Amino acid sequence: MNDPIIQCLTDTDVYKFNMMYLVWKLWRRTLGESAMNNRSRRVRLAEIIPEEALREQLDHALTLRFGSEELEQLESFRLEDGRPQYSSEFVKHFLADFQLPQYELKKTADGQYDMRFPGTWAQFILWETLAMSIVTELRGYYTLAAEGKKMADLYDEGRRRRDAKIERLNSYPGIRFMEFVTRRRYSRDWHDELVGELKSGLHHDQMTGTSNVWLARKYGLKAQGTQAHELFMAYARLFGNDPATVRHSQNRVLQDWWDLYGHSLSIALTDTYGTEFFFRMMTPEQARLWKGLRQDSGDPFVFGERAISFYRKHEVNPLDKLVVFSDGLDLDRIIALYERFSRLIQVAFGWGTNLGNDLGIDPISLVIKLVQICGVDCVKLSDNLAKAIGPPELVAFLSEVFGYTVGLSEECRY
Amino acid sequence: MNDPIIQCLTDTDVYKFNMMYLVWKLWRRTLGESAMNNRSRRVRLAEIIPEEALREQLDHALTLRFGSEELEQLESFRLEDGRPQYSSEFVKHFLADFQLPQYELKKTADGQYDMRFPGTWAQFILWETLAMSIVTELRGYYTLAAEGKKMADLYDEGRRRRDAKIERLNSYPGIRFMEFVTRRRYSRDWHDELVGELKSGLHHDQMTGTSNVWLARKYGLKAQGTQAHELFMAYARLFGNDPATVRHSQNRVLQDWWDLYGHSLSIALTDTYGTEFFFRMMTPEQARLWKGLRQDSGDPFVFGERAISFYRKHEVNPLDKLVVFSDGLDLDRIIALYERFSRLIQVAFGWGTNLGNDLGIDPISLVIKLVQICGVDCVKLSDNLAKAIGPPELVAFLSEVFGYTVGLSEECRY
Repeated sequence: MNDPIIQCLTDTDVYKFNMMYLVWKLWRRTLGESAMNNRSRRVRLAEIIPEEALREQLDHALTLRFGSEELEQLESFRLEDGRPQYSSEFVKHFLADFQLPQYELKKTADGQYDMRFPGTWAQFILWETLAMSIVTELRGYYTLAAEGKKMADLYDEGRRRRDAKIERLNSYPGIRFMEFVTRRRYSRDWHDELVGELKSGLHHDQMTGTSNVWLARKYGLKAQGTQAHELFMAYARLFGNDPATVRHSQNRVLQDWWDLYGHSLSIALTDTYGTEFFFRMMTPEQARLWKGLRQDSGDPFVFGERAISFYRKHEVNPLDKLVVFSDGLDLDRIIALYERFSRLIQVAFGWGTNLGNDLGIDPISLVIKLVQICGVDCVKLSDNLAKAIGPPELVAFLSEVFGYTVGLSEECRY
Repeated sequence: MNDPIIQCLTDTDVYKFNMMYLVWKLWRRTLGESAMNNRSRRVRLAEIIPEEALREQLDHALTLRFGSEELEQLESFRLEDGRPQYSSEFVKHFLADFQLPQYELKKTADGQYDMRFPGTWAQFILWETLAMSIVTELRGYYTLAAEGKKMADLYDEGRRRRDAKIERLNSYPGIRFMEFVTRRRYSRDWHDELVGELKSGLHHDQMTGTSNVWLARKYGLKAQGTQAHELFMAYARLFGNDPATVRHSQNRVLQDWWDLYGHSLSIALTDTYGTEFFFRMMTPEQARLWKGLRQDSGDPFVFGERAISFYRKHEVNPLDKLVVFSDGLDLDRIIALYERFSRLIQVAFGWGTNLGNDLGIDPISLVIKLVQICGVDCVKLSDNLAKAIGPPELVAFLSEVFGYTVGLSEECRY
């Protein structure tokens, strides 16, 4: 491969900047580490992607700086009340001087890459989607190359499937989704074309925005996102081991987020330590104030019911609130969820892998997650223990602390 | 005792604000804990000071808020280049809303108080000198009360000793000192009178300033200070356990401090993990740029020699640099150090206990130190292992990491 996969630092999700700003503001010097995990162990990435090719792409990302157009775009973001989303010190000093910190890479005995991003949280936080886009595209490229094919050879099939999605969506003018494709996209070029085609092909503004800052700029779309597990994972470990304090840490995420962004970005991610815990932790006042919730693991139909009963319990009309479904969606599931819930609660979809990597190669379940913060290991439980991350004894401790009861509620999808 | 000992939140050392601002800016949400330690174990504080009286004083401090005059004073501080020392967000939002976090207090089996200040570092950081002033004054009050005496009964003797100091100092027009009395002062009233008398009684500006922000305001003096061990202690533990990283953490303190305050406040505390380590850690460029060094444990005459050779090694003229001696000074020692070094290197003195608590009662060696940061224990070594703090195995680990060799170089002074 010759072309750089990552050509600008805004070719990432806007929520990474939202989280980065919080981390920079409140945890500026805090160190930690994130690491890649390929949950599709059968796909032996280190036997598919040559290490040299991978390093070349990562090294190119290291050379990137924010351009003036990108800084202007980020500085132009406004909250609902007209305040700038980010301070000018953040954009003009921190981002203007920013470069990605060094990565660590080695091959493992079982044919995977051990890829790590140690350093200052406020810096390595930006690696996540960039590295995932790189690995995902390289995996496609070299998988096809081994069969004597090129990436573009699948475009016909990809376009057929994409256009079928667009056509079908046009029968559902009420469906609202954000494209969350970036990290698992087939390729940069494919992603670019896809967003353009979605914009022109959908007749009813079904696509409310894109998570990708670069493509938002290119296509005049709204850059949209919520928040990720890493905030909840870090907060759970940054305040010591007293169970009450650890539990309280999760609400601190919501408080700190609200202090920065208020109502504008008030969609809470619910599943880091199990959705049952989340519904106990969110206060009635927060239930009233926050726009809504994001569902990212477990059974979305069960979640929808629980969200509705949660709001009713707090005397909030569910139709004033929004649920964003973002876990392993395809169009069948989107339509089923839309038809099941849209008359009861507002629904939106964060549509990723199946929207942007549906050309014939089975996508892999790749993540880059926080594994350590300030010297201690990190854990994620989620509503699906196949997605759990962290050392077993710590998983056990935090399961106890958070009263975690949800088991392996569905088969592992990949 | 009826009057509150702490009547305003600026009745503390200015360096607490300097460190608080750094912590607020770079470690805003980081939790930790500081705790009191009475190194004079023979003085059984919990048998002298009634718990109710101690709680009453601490509880009063909890009610305090910064007044507008205090906020204006803090906002008026300027660096050498005219920039404000603190951002207006820090003063107008953080400090304007500030109140001290809750303390924890219980008696121990050996007749001491276990007094702890857990919480957000950027908040409990302000407890240190306030609580020390309270405990020190109460100890004097109740020690005297047990003998049927009042605090004021010692004033005659105190004034005699104070005036003798002033008179003697007036024969040394070249001596420069800052009064570092606050935390170990005999009493608030005595401190107030002392600073007034020093200002009017010294003929040659020997007193360059006071560490106390309130008294600086009251007497039109410069509020002066350097930096404390807590920054170095926290940084040593905030970046994990890799020895190279732990070592590097100490220079990060200097870098972060310089980034905020530049040349204006560039006097480095040298002894947290032994002065030998410090002289290896400070870079030649920093040796050239920084104003000077503070000596706070070990033999000050040995330190002076080492500082001079350190600067010469880096081709810096020692006469361009300043050593601040601040460890257990009395006037004999001040004069001896002044005569020994003032033709070789600039010298100044941070004069505390013996200046502000010399009325007839033996002062105690009381400290409040960081004991935990972000869930891990903290350690201080210093050039005098009698001043070391922390769990023995961690003391051993960090001694190894920092190549610590200095032993118990002098008898414990109290």
